[in-house]
Amino acid sequence: MSVLIVGSTALDSIKTPKAENPRLLGGSASHASVAASFFGPVKLVGVVGDDFPKRYIQLYQRHGIDLEGLQTLPGKTFHWSGEYEANMNNRRTLLTELGVFETFTPTLPKGHRSAPFVLLGNIAPSLHHHVLDQMQRPRFVVADTMDLWINIALPDLLRLLKRLDAFVLNDSEAQLLTNEENVFAALKKIHKLGPKYVVIKKGSHGSILSGPEGFFICPAYPLRKVVDPTGAGDSFVGAMIGYLASARGPVSGNLRRAMIYGSVVASFCCEGFGLNRTTKVARTQIDRRVKELEVFTRY
Amino acid sequence: MSVLIVGSTALDSIKTPKAENPRLLGGSASHASVAASFFGPVKLVGVVGDDFPKRYIQLYQRHGIDLEGLQTLPGKTFHWSGEYEANMNNRRTLLTELGVFETFTPTLPKGHRSAPFVLLGNIAPSLHHHVLDQMQRPRFVVADTMDLWINIALPDLLRLLKRLDAFVLNDSEAQLLTNEENVFAALKKIHKLGPKYVVIKKGSHGSILSGPEGFFICPAYPLRKVVDPTGAGDSFVGAMIGYLASARGPVSGNLRRAMIYGSVVASFCCEGFGLNRTTKVARTQIDRRVKELEVFTRY
Repeated sequence: MSVLIVGSTALDSIKTPKAENPRLLGGSASHASVAASFFGPVKLVGVVGDDFPKRYIQLYQRHGIDLEGLQTLPGKTFHWSGEYEANMNNRRTLLTELGVFETFTPTLPKGHRSAPFVLLGNIAPSLHHHVLDQMQRPRFVVADTMDLWINIALPDLLRLLKRLDAFVLNDSEAQLLTNEENVFAALKKIHKLGPKYVVIKKGSHGSILSGPEGFFICPAYPLRKVVDPTGAGDSFVGAMIGYLASARGPVSGNLRRAMIYGSVVASFCCEGFGLNRTTKVARTQIDRRVKELEVFTRY
Repeated sequence: MSVLIVGSTALDSIKTPKAENPRLLGGSASHASVAASFFGPVKLVGVVGDDFPKRYIQLYQRHGIDLEGLQTLPGKTFHWSGEYEANMNNRRTLLTELGVFETFTPTLPKGHRSAPFVLLGNIAPSLHHHVLDQMQRPRFVVADTMDLWINIALPDLLRLLKRLDAFVLNDSEAQLLTNEENVFAALKKIHKLGPKYVVIKKGSHGSILSGPEGFFICPAYPLRKVVDPTGAGDSFVGAMIGYLASARGPVSGNLRRAMIYGSVVASFCCEGFGLNRTTKVARTQIDRRVKELEVFTRY
């Protein structure tokens, strides 16, 4: 079944202690769509400016991503620039130029409105509402967020939480949202805000699912070297929804394995700048790491 | 089979944002011995002063811990005092009074020298050497350490690493020892220093085993509330060696489950001040949490 993914489509200029890479393909929708594309058809909804490199369009196309919902507007593509510290966890934003993203209103092509699986990638929750308002009864809706929206768009976000099946955020965002230092205490509070399933991402420490079937403690794939973690969270949730849309049976029975696939695709993302590594991965390599993770967690 | 545990036997005065508890039973050997006692016979090797409360001797005895190797010397028992921040992870030491521990030389009773399983709990590595020098070919030797010994006794510690089967330390200590931010890169370097098995503890994020059978990613038991994490690491390694000594078959085949038991006993430790909660736990409660962890990690 197909997945609709809405989010940012951006140019990322990323600096780490070891290298500097300008104007890579980035944005939550780019990472999530490529990650989801390993499992089945993806419809991307986003906006780029007329400066958007043709090679990035071709990259989406090589992954079979449906671009009917990608608007091209006169002006500049969203440009983000950030710098990582040596530990590759702490980063600071050097620059944010919204460009055409500033006036982005996602309008769904007719064929997109019946997509059964929807990923609301990290953008303003008001845009998530706008997308959901156009959808016909999707089977499963997941949203990802970031600290910015908790800080500046909390009412929109709280209203959104009641429209989701699953909500994904990282541990520091969960703490910001709930004022709880403890992940499991935070999960309890987030469920009360609406979502049936809550996933808390903890970077290299893995992730936690909480839902009616109980907790699932999902490992991260072990990496000895992280080149660039930008987009790892988007890759995680993209692979997760991609796997869910491709798997048979009820979502409840597939969510755990979907997270394992999310961990694995996120690990590839971390091994290169931007999407450099992810776009070179074959499905067989993903399946091999999934099998390895099974061995690393079995006892 | 029996376990010999050497380490500190102390009085801990612990302050958290919510409470203050003076002169609790503490020390690496106390926590580890109680944790190991759920699985089989334990011989504790340590030293206390003549101020050591009789009720703490009785507590050891209720757990069936062999105290022949516990020396009582004239003077004061080792006293440690610390304060936790609200997140219950960061703590600072307020006071360290070594007392009789300052001149501690662990002399093993004759019956102790053939113990097949040995845990060198967190004390100076020179004392670990002194214990190993008295042992007759133990089957499996594990040592735990802390940042202090990496900082002030590195040559002793490096020499110790070549005498161990397994080395246990936490993530920040692994970083300090290897100058590697990445846990998996640090593991590779630590193996080169000697130990066949290395376990890196990551607190609420679980632990990682590395050895000839590959990695094992061990979850922490989910806790919504941490009352006092003091001794959780000692409880983890104590339960681990206790389980190993009780299990049939080769150690290599039991290590993963031993870590799961370590996680569970450490979780009980965190639910009370000092040993308050751990000493009230029944083996059936431990087994119940082990089963829960199986459900939380299955997919």
